[in-house]
Amino acid sequence: MTSERDVVQAGAAQWLDTLQDWVRIPSVSADPGHHGDVTASAEFLAEQLRANGFPDVKVLADGPWLPAVLAHWPSGDPDAVRVVVYGHHDVQPADGVERWTYPPFEPRIIDGVLHGRGASDDKGNIAMHLLGLRAHLAATGRTSPAVNLTLLVEGEEESGSPHIMELLHAYRDELAADLIVVSDTGIFGPETPSVCIGMRGLVAAEIHVHGPDIDLHSGSFGGAVPNPITELSRILAALHDDDRHVTVPGFYDDVIEPTEAERAATAALPFDEEAWITGPAASRAAAGEAGWTTLERIGARPTAEINGIWGGYTGPGNKTIVPTDAYAKVTFRLVGRQQPAVIQQQVTDFVTAAARPGVQVEIHWEGAGVAPLYVDTEHPATTATRAALGQAFDTDVVLMTREGGSGPEAELAGVIGAPLVFLGVMTDDDQIHAPNEKAVVSLLLKGCEAVAHLWRELAERGRAGLR
Amino acid sequence: MTSERDVVQAGAAQWLDTLQDWVRIPSVSADPGHHGDVTASAEFLAEQLRANGFPDVKVLADGPWLPAVLAHWPSGDPDAVRVVVYGHHDVQPADGVERWTYPPFEPRIIDGVLHGRGASDDKGNIAMHLLGLRAHLAATGRTSPAVNLTLLVEGEEESGSPHIMELLHAYRDELAADLIVVSDTGIFGPETPSVCIGMRGLVAAEIHVHGPDIDLHSGSFGGAVPNPITELSRILAALHDDDRHVTVPGFYDDVIEPTEAERAATAALPFDEEAWITGPAASRAAAGEAGWTTLERIGARPTAEINGIWGGYTGPGNKTIVPTDAYAKVTFRLVGRQQPAVIQQQVTDFVTAAARPGVQVEIHWEGAGVAPLYVDTEHPATTATRAALGQAFDTDVVLMTREGGSGPEAELAGVIGAPLVFLGVMTDDDQIHAPNEKAVVSLLLKGCEAVAHLWRELAERGRAGLR
Repeated sequence: MTSERDVVQAGAAQWLDTLQDWVRIPSVSADPGHHGDVTASAEFLAEQLRANGFPDVKVLADGPWLPAVLAHWPSGDPDAVRVVVYGHHDVQPADGVERWTYPPFEPRIIDGVLHGRGASDDKGNIAMHLLGLRAHLAATGRTSPAVNLTLLVEGEEESGSPHIMELLHAYRDELAADLIVVSDTGIFGPETPSVCIGMRGLVAAEIHVHGPDIDLHSGSFGGAVPNPITELSRILAALHDDDRHVTVPGFYDDVIEPTEAERAATAALPFDEEAWITGPAASRAAAGEAGWTTLERIGARPTAEINGIWGGYTGPGNKTIVPTDAYAKVTFRLVGRQQPAVIQQQVTDFVTAAARPGVQVEIHWEGAGVAPLYVDTEHPATTATRAALGQAFDTDVVLMTREGGSGPEAELAGVIGAPLVFLGVMTDDDQIHAPNEKAVVSLLLKGCEAVAHLWRELAERGRAGLR
Repeated sequence: MTSERDVVQAGAAQWLDTLQDWVRIPSVSADPGHHGDVTASAEFLAEQLRANGFPDVKVLADGPWLPAVLAHWPSGDPDAVRVVVYGHHDVQPADGVERWTYPPFEPRIIDGVLHGRGASDDKGNIAMHLLGLRAHLAATGRTSPAVNLTLLVEGEEESGSPHIMELLHAYRDELAADLIVVSDTGIFGPETPSVCIGMRGLVAAEIHVHGPDIDLHSGSFGGAVPNPITELSRILAALHDDDRHVTVPGFYDDVIEPTEAERAATAALPFDEEAWITGPAASRAAAGEAGWTTLERIGARPTAEINGIWGGYTGPGNKTIVPTDAYAKVTFRLVGRQQPAVIQQQVTDFVTAAARPGVQVEIHWEGAGVAPLYVDTEHPATTATRAALGQAFDTDVVLMTREGGSGPEAELAGVIGAPLVFLGVMTDDDQIHAPNEKAVVSLLLKGCEAVAHLWRELAERGRAGLR
């Protein structure tokens, strides 16, 4: 009988061709100009799922959300474990095209690395479920999965999943499950696979400061009317104190501080900070909230981050104006029991209070945000995930890591009412959300194998063993 | 014998056609893409000067500067007063085209108002010297001006006159003069003509903060590496204290505080602040350095103004990154004895000191800047200018005003070694440097008439009377 690994190796070349075809579709959810591509991407995935044997595949385009894909492949045994796999087929914008070594939507494999926007986040990680399922079927000699399998692949995760609650509620009956498997995270490193046990939440806002109704000559008016860029800079600068703590009143109220044991475990991780700074972080220094280590700042602490800013004259030379408007995009990562709605209100109050007379300050929130989520590390499904990952990597997986990123995991867990585990193989230097996104092909193939192992591991435990 | 006013009225229509042809040339010095238009604008002006009788007209394109125009029309009497008229034929960028009611370079006259970029600043004010000179000749029955007339019209004033010193030194011999007349300023209001007696100086910089070498996922890296927009915001916010004083150490050292008499005179000006706020300032409030009035903030106090800012993701939706870079354009207006080189050093030191570890902070100065300049209010040339303006406006001109704007007046006065007066008819609501720049035709025609009166007034005083 063939092994999961054999099937993955045999199918790798064709599978990589399919993945590259998918990456060629620029499914950028943030840009309305690419929404047709988001639809094309959903249809491409649906077609691949059907070609791989899924008997029930739908493109969901009947709500305010961008097209999502919902697919079912029953095991044949209604009492088998019911699993919902979650991920997304939309991608980050690929602006700054001049900084890409290869065009973002012309994927290619060079020296075992797949280059392209979405190669890792999240097309590469979702595609693992195509080859992984084939390996599961072949290795177990089955014609249907050993678990009742559902895939939900949404099309606007990179835009903050603004309609995930509507989507989940609209298809709630089809999403009944004993376990949610999220494939949109990574491992600690290629040599040190780990199971992710937490993701931060996220709320995203745009701050708009309006000053004069027309650009004013800075000689004739400057110094005598409020400058919206100055006012915006003051608000943004005030978000952190000199120790880089977030100053928004109440912001830390619902943060759960790690225990001393947790802090010790994090400190014991094989983390080379100098290598991290100059390597994946491509920076000159680590810097963050005083009193916390780099890994804690990413995994355990909430943040306020400015993602973009613009206003006034930005062309060549100079233009001596007091400009009309200034804008900033700001996101907050949430941890512990921080709730998006509460943080949104606290930040709104803070910005409102910081606004000085003479300018109009508005804050616009993008969607409802997503809450942080933490995995039950003692849950049998977590154990099964560690086992599956260990079999694929030929090692014992003991490491548990928290990711700094955010997705709608808390919403999934809340609406579906099931425990949740993470199964993904991204690494810190995949340059997701940056130019030159890439994925290591050997890790993707190990991910395919881990998927196959996980379905077997879960089936062996059964519904009773997962409670 | 015909009067100056008769000639101006008779020539107005044709003159306005010529001015509109000039405004059609988008001579934006800040944009290298428009430098061909700056050349075309210089050639257009040179051709008009020749057509109006100037016997010696040159386009100066033999240095690092953008093309300037130098024209001479001797009076025939080498002992007559020698005047250099200064202005500029380049214009501000017209970005934000969607905010223009009419296309910026398709001028038109509607209800007595000329619309178009450069209608006021400075093509309209320089063009006054074409029709004004014809009025002078016709009204005095002369075939050459009563003064030895030189025009210097540069092509990069709106870019901070970065090469004015080279230009002045290269043509120093041809610029020998008893008086400099600058036509690039305004009057207090259409009903209250005034002579301008001062302009602020200016230095312009771009601040660049470089963080990570690649855009980083704000979940995986945010909170643990410096964010260049946060760092830039802190630097910009720190430029002013809560009372809107500039905090750069030493910044106010060379400011000359106005006397109590000057403050009383300024306070007595017929200034309706509420009307100014909602009218020309198009704002919701006056705001500026504590302890000073609006007119003092514009005329008597130095400023730090942010003209533009950009960095990170500025497209639709959101992109959760720690961006690589953030930029701001900043200008400082100078007064009293503040010297550009000193202020540049002080600001450079301030920005360098404000930069925190982990980001690279650079400040780039655009050119050497220009120093503030104050007119000798007791000088006979100032009296002559008041008289000329009064004859054009049929009123006694007693008001003296300081403008907040900046030009290379101190450099002109320094190199040429002559006193300087201002003769211009812009108003606060001409929207110079903003969308919808315009000029009031009746004021431009009064300006033409004032030019004609000024040449006669100066000739009557003679060189001896101007010492």
